[in-house]
Amino acid sequence: MARRKKVYEGKAKILYEGPEPGTLVQYFKDDSSSSVAVPSTLEGKGVLNNRLSEFFMSGLNQIGVPTHFIRRLNMREQLVRMAEIIPLEIVVRNFAAGPLSARLGIPEGTQLPRPIVEYYFKDEKLNLPLVAEEHIVAFGWANQQDLDDIVALALRVNDFLSGVMMGVGIRLADFRIEVGRIWEGDFMRLIVADEISPDSCRLWDMRQPERPDGTIPDPQPMGDVYTELARRLGVLPTNITHTMKPTLIN
Amino acid sequence: MARRKKVYEGKAKILYEGPEPGTLVQYFKDDSSSSVAVPSTLEGKGVLNNRLSEFFMSGLNQIGVPTHFIRRLNMREQLVRMAEIIPLEIVVRNFAAGPLSARLGIPEGTQLPRPIVEYYFKDEKLNLPLVAEEHIVAFGWANQQDLDDIVALALRVNDFLSGVMMGVGIRLADFRIEVGRIWEGDFMRLIVADEISPDSCRLWDMRQPERPDGTIPDPQPMGDVYTELARRLGVLPTNITHTMKPTLIN
Repeated sequence: MARRKKVYEGKAKILYEGPEPGTLVQYFKDDSSSSVAVPSTLEGKGVLNNRLSEFFMSGLNQIGVPTHFIRRLNMREQLVRMAEIIPLEIVVRNFAAGPLSARLGIPEGTQLPRPIVEYYFKDEKLNLPLVAEEHIVAFGWANQQDLDDIVALALRVNDFLSGVMMGVGIRLADFRIEVGRIWEGDFMRLIVADEISPDSCRLWDMRQPERPDGTIPDPQPMGDVYTELARRLGVLPTNITHTMKPTLIN
Repeated sequence: MARRKKVYEGKAKILYEGPEPGTLVQYFKDDSSSSVAVPSTLEGKGVLNNRLSEFFMSGLNQIGVPTHFIRRLNMREQLVRMAEIIPLEIVVRNFAAGPLSARLGIPEGTQLPRPIVEYYFKDEKLNLPLVAEEHIVAFGWANQQDLDDIVALALRVNDFLSGVMMGVGIRLADFRIEVGRIWEGDFMRLIVADEISPDSCRLWDMRQPERPDGTIPDPQPMGDVYTELARRLGVLPTNITHTMKPTLIN
């Protein structure tokens, strides 16, 4: 591992040169970027996100939505296709939450009239500012045809991912993806890149205990989301559940 | 119930006039049409299909794919919008199976290069013959615009339903839907009608026990599919599991 060339290191992941041309090894760390509402380091998170991203990306490949995912290599690494990343975070929102609620005054939890696709310029120093298609085309980050393809891709991911989550009792309030370009000869294609995991999805648990009066509370943010999601999807590695730490007895 | 006007009776369902204009009550029987590979009558099947179709149709409504489903009324009935049914069964195939395998000589279980949408003319006496878009347009069952909309609708249902099934360890090999027209003023829309249930889906269980040599067998047709699917999706009514019949002791 010491001899591999590091291509990129972010808060939550490291990219190394892959074994074949056009590939990369994506390593999942236990740290999170500050935009994720969890402790900045969570032991074992990278292992679960590696599994979860494998689950979602291979599912997307399966239904014909192209992604960068090739195969999982080990507990923390997966082999992916090298893509030229479009410098946007593409967010799809089904329910109002977070910045949308704050900026537009829509109460958290309100269902949106239809899924809303937003773009944020991928620059951490600028705090990922919201941009419109106008900015994207003017600054040459993507052209109009790319944007049409990105919307189509994002909405297919939304249909699929909403289905997966609904199947296990979870509401997909919103999520973000990154998209990259790959070339097959002269032909350019856009593919889903980065990761799909609780770090990139806002998930609300629909399995709420019934109240004494028989009503069911609104879906709430998932507790222990990495472990719980992996458990419900049947991808929890059998050798890491919660570490039972020895307790000091005075 | 005796006073309600019966609008239609098929093998698996009865339609009654609904309480408001433009609505119908859809009643789920325990019988199945001969095209479904289960015993012709299966006690409790209608109850489960009512729940399962509610689950899928309300999920589709939720993500913005319009369906006829309004709400479940009781154990065997749901309120639906009255639609003018297009006389086609629309089949989406992800993996070769059944008639596709037989007619084109593709081994069962082969993944198709992309989802294939087929149309069958909805006439039980003719045994639901396969038809091409050419026949559909020539005979006026639907026009080219309808067909484009039907394909878009069917593929969205496929993305969503593949996701739901994948979330609970099931492969969606193929499924069929019916589509109907509704009018909103002068504006005509196509919506998903009929039902979505194990009677209309070919489901293969991906949760196969590991072989002694550590390999996992290919997905197999789901056993006890109505109960097992309802259980995995968390919609099994608590008061019907398997009926424990008294055993005669000599």
